Amino acid sequence: MGWMKDETGLDKTPANFVPLTPLSHLARAARVFPRRTAVVDGAHRKTYAEYHARVSRLASALAARGIKPGDVVSTVLPNTYAHAEAHFGVPASGAVLNAINIRLDVATVAYIFDHAETALILADTQFLPLVEKALEAMEGPAPQIIEVPDADAGHPATGRYTTYEALLEEGDPEAPWQMPEDEWESIALNYTSGTTGRPKGVVYHHRGAYLITMGTPISWRMTLYPIYLTIVPMFHCNNWCHTWMMPAVGGTLVCCREITATAIYDAIADEGVTHMGGAPIVLNMLVNAKDEDRRAFDHRVEVFTAGAPPAAATLAAIETMGFHVTQVYGLTESYGHATECVWQDDDWSDLDAAARAGIKARQGVALPNMDHITVMDPETMAQIPMDGTATGEIMMRGNVTMKGYYKNPEATAEAFAGGYFHTGDIAVQHPDSYIQIADRAKDIIISGGENISSVEVEGVLMHHPAVSLCAVVARPDEKWGEVPCAFVELKEGAQATEPDIIAFARERLAGFKTPKAVFFTELPKTSTGKIQKFELRARARTL
Amino acid sequence: MGWMKDETGLDKTPANFVPLTPLSHLARAARVFPRRTAVVDGAHRKTYAEYHARVSRLASALAARGIKPGDVVSTVLPNTYAHAEAHFGVPASGAVLNAINIRLDVATVAYIFDHAETALILADTQFLPLVEKALEAMEGPAPQIIEVPDADAGHPATGRYTTYEALLEEGDPEAPWQMPEDEWESIALNYTSGTTGRPKGVVYHHRGAYLITMGTPISWRMTLYPIYLTIVPMFHCNNWCHTWMMPAVGGTLVCCREITATAIYDAIADEGVTHMGGAPIVLNMLVNAKDEDRRAFDHRVEVFTAGAPPAAATLAAIETMGFHVTQVYGLTESYGHATECVWQDDDWSDLDAAARAGIKARQGVALPNMDHITVMDPETMAQIPMDGTATGEIMMRGNVTMKGYYKNPEATAEAFAGGYFHTGDIAVQHPDSYIQIADRAKDIIISGGENISSVEVEGVLMHHPAVSLCAVVARPDEKWGEVPCAFVELKEGAQATEPDIIAFARERLAGFKTPKAVFFTELPKTSTGKIQKFELRARARTL
Ligand SMILES: Nc1ncnc2c1ncn2[C@@H]1O[C@H](COP(=O)(O)OP(=O)(O)OP(=O)(O)O)[C@@H](O)[C@H]1O
Ligand SMILES: Nc1ncnc2c1ncn2[C@@H]1O[C@H](COP(=O)(O)OP(=O)(O)OP(=O)(O)O)[C@@H](O)[C@H]1O
Ligand SMILES: [Mg+2]
Ligand SMILES: [Mg+2]
Repeated sequence: MGWMKDETGLDKTPANFVPLTPLSHLARAARVFPRRTAVVDGAHRKTYAEYHARVSRLASALAARGIKPGDVVSTVLPNTYAHAEAHFGVPASGAVLNAINIRLDVATVAYIFDHAETALILADTQFLPLVEKALEAMEGPAPQIIEVPDADAGHPATGRYTTYEALLEEGDPEAPWQMPEDEWESIALNYTSGTTGRPKGVVYHHRGAYLITMGTPISWRMTLYPIYLTIVPMFHCNNWCHTWMMPAVGGTLVCCREITATAIYDAIADEGVTHMGGAPIVLNMLVNAKDEDRRAFDHRVEVFTAGAPPAAATLAAIETMGFHVTQVYGLTESYGHATECVWQDDDWSDLDAAARAGIKARQGVALPNMDHITVMDPETMAQIPMDGTATGEIMMRGNVTMKGYYKNPEATAEAFAGGYFHTGDIAVQHPDSYIQIADRAKDIIISGGENISSVEVEGVLMHHPAVSLCAVVARPDEKWGEVPCAFVELKEGAQATEPDIIAFARERLAGFKTPKAVFFTELPKTSTGKIQKFELRARARTL
Repeated sequence: MGWMKDETGLDKTPANFVPLTPLSHLARAARVFPRRTAVVDGAHRKTYAEYHARVSRLASALAARGIKPGDVVSTVLPNTYAHAEAHFGVPASGAVLNAINIRLDVATVAYIFDHAETALILADTQFLPLVEKALEAMEGPAPQIIEVPDADAGHPATGRYTTYEALLEEGDPEAPWQMPEDEWESIALNYTSGTTGRPKGVVYHHRGAYLITMGTPISWRMTLYPIYLTIVPMFHCNNWCHTWMMPAVGGTLVCCREITATAIYDAIADEGVTHMGGAPIVLNMLVNAKDEDRRAFDHRVEVFTAGAPPAAATLAAIETMGFHVTQVYGLTESYGHATECVWQDDDWSDLDAAARAGIKARQGVALPNMDHITVMDPETMAQIPMDGTATGEIMMRGNVTMKGYYKNPEATAEAFAGGYFHTGDIAVQHPDSYIQIADRAKDIIISGGENISSVEVEGVLMHHPAVSLCAVVARPDEKWGEVPCAFVELKEGAQATEPDIIAFARERLAGFKTPKAVFFTELPKTSTGKIQKFELRARARTL
């Protein structure tokens, strides 16, 4: 421990210790870049001076309405300027931001309001019906509602609630902010997608939200004044914390309410977008866009993609179109991206397109702001062999890992057992330490003592000409312990029988990996489009 | 304060809290970029895997020699690979790095060894005579010496001490590092230049050393894989902490033992240097280089310059030569650069060369990693008017501010009075908040109640054809309190009298600003080339 012989007078003082928080980025940007464009949302264009003043209004108006430090303010908003302002204004009032997925069902939204004890809701007019129904379904006391209309998008104010702009009028553009006294204070509460069960409330601290904004520019090859397009929803890991990062780099945040190829190409061509993030499906949308939806541009766009590995064909196509794609991987628990498939110029630039796409399909290595991310045996916490074959669970340690699950100390302790966060994702590691995901831990099927990756079996079934979507889960079996069982959505007008599918799989897979039963049905999905295998497992047990 | 209603189970754990330290950058780089070139020093070229292993050897060898956490290890080294390794290896043993200026005099080096209680010295063969004399002059017990020869540079080992490579042989390339348990632990002890008196021992913590490495890439427009040339000495604010930053960005550190135009141009052309820092005098050297010393290159080199404002003519010339210069400003107390003259593309790109140079002469605004830097009245701590005329003292608050002065709690408390670090530099602020230095606080002359900037008077005298160098200081005066008094070095062979100089100044300055006395003499300078006005003031009192 590097304590010197005499540390007298070397303590923390207000001059040399300031709690880390992304709020400081906006405070600085208002001083350093007051006239730069901070936020663009259609006709709404605000400079950093204006953005800062509006945030101060929001924070002080919330306080005047009785929101106290530590209270939860929920948002039910698409990616609009109001949502960006809430990212700063809610914590600047000392409150905790809870951005809720606008595609959730009523029951889950009600569950979140109750669990979070929401004090106030900022709700887009389009999603007021969802919010109102959730309030009816709530058990606890109903929060206040502030309505955020978007007339340009066809959602004018209903007149039933105080509007967002009226709320801002209640505030003071020069009000001082409530800065954290301890960087461990909470800044956000984000519920997981619920792919593996009930969504869990993940708590972020100011420290982590600050540190990810300092590591991201390095991995994203970002220099001063980027133009960033918000495709990743702000309710998803707070947009991977990019909204908080923008003021640090003097960047412009371009809001995107509806994610369409036209909207994206227009933003690139008209606003000069340099950076964007999105699921592989968004890349597909760009590759397959109709000619009339495309726009020409002559700069390079840096893209982060995550959520699922991008298909090789998509990667090969999009890289010739002016985009440079980096796969990242992370979870709500890691504030978004925690690993990145860092491109090793020296080693890989001479590879052919297929080999390059093969590497880009990996989830990669820890971001500069994480301490250690690797794959371990979850029982022994031993490093797995880095041979591209052995599997284990992805484990993370670092400052951009959640504080824990809200009101769930048992789940938190379990997730942090052994000094690492257990991601629940099963992966191999290549000899260069790059991680590649094989499956979710809960989705692995163990048959006769052999592990079967559900992802591998699904990959084979997806090649069947009649299959549109599929999911493979474990079904209990007296003899083998578990056996693979497939659920399939067929393409419109296509036909296939259970024996067809099994025969198709058997030709391409080892016997123990071949599904023993196939059911044709619509697959249950989360609001982020992930298949809920826990539901299918329940069904498989009864079928 | 953003503490939620229920914070049960949301505490720090090893999974979500890791003390910030630049050591983590090298640990990660060895995993992520093992085969990239980390350090180049003539024939010495090491990858990140090798760099990491050598650092582990150094750390474990130091521990084996009895160096304990918190002990001080001093270096008397130019910018060589051993010095870079010491930046990681010394803290990785838990010890504190004290990099000493190789141009200091024996008495000051002895003073530092005593004050720091140095336990071990890494000394370059060229500077062994200085070190040996300093050991003789010391009061306390003599530290161990490890000799770092540089045969290629003409300094082969003397045979009198264990050499650096022999020391590494004693170590273990796989030894675990002593990571900080608290990010407030000390990582370095750096003595100030001694421009205003005895050098003060400035203590850095791991937290600050980490955070400056995360803010710098943003302000320096640095993307992955930069090639950085070490011109700023590693003993000067640890090379503005760039040595610690390089592994975070997968960069290559190119060492430069002798700072000459040839060496710099060669490094740019042969190694592809993309970033370098240096005093304005280095820029001059490049501009004025002889044709045969120049090399062609076709990329842009990003340059940080600090220490003094670069001359407008130098800036205009160098910007057409492939360099992009940003002025930064800072002190030993702020780990190097704390402000930067951030270029506002939108507002300034249409200005003519003179106007651009005028702006580049400003010291600018806070780096992204600092909280608040501004100019205040040091008595009232009130913000000065931002009118380009009113002066005050530059004040800083943020995480990249020293822990304090070693063994000097009084000076520390004084420096941090009112919650800001008092820099001792007097400046104006322009309407856009950009700071421009007028003078050091201690060098301001107050005559008849009027402030006189010594820098302004010197600027006028420097235009006199016979004047090579000059300094203007206050002399006590019965009637006016103080009057300006000039010390002048004449150009070789040139002649001028006291009345000549006074008459020259009187034509160009207000009467009260005109020096009342002129002395012709060699000026006392610090080892970093700054004029020691405190000595001149003492002389002025007696003359
Ligand atoms: N690049 C990627 N490649 C493959 N899978 C990814 C990638 N990025 C994220 N994922 C998957 O998404 C998960 C994180 O998703 P998120 O935190 O939104 O909720 P969830 O884990 O789906 O929901 P829940 O935790 O409630 O079951 C990861 O654990 C991983 O399984
Ligand atoms: N860009 C710059 N323009 C003008 N002056 C600068 C600039 N950068 C640094 N300086 C000067 O250098 C000083 C910091 O130098 P350093 O910490 O090396 O020691 P010092 O202040 O000269 O010595 P001491 O504190 O012992 O008197 C600043 O306080 C400022 O006066
Ligand atoms: Mg999850
Ligand atoms: Mg000083």
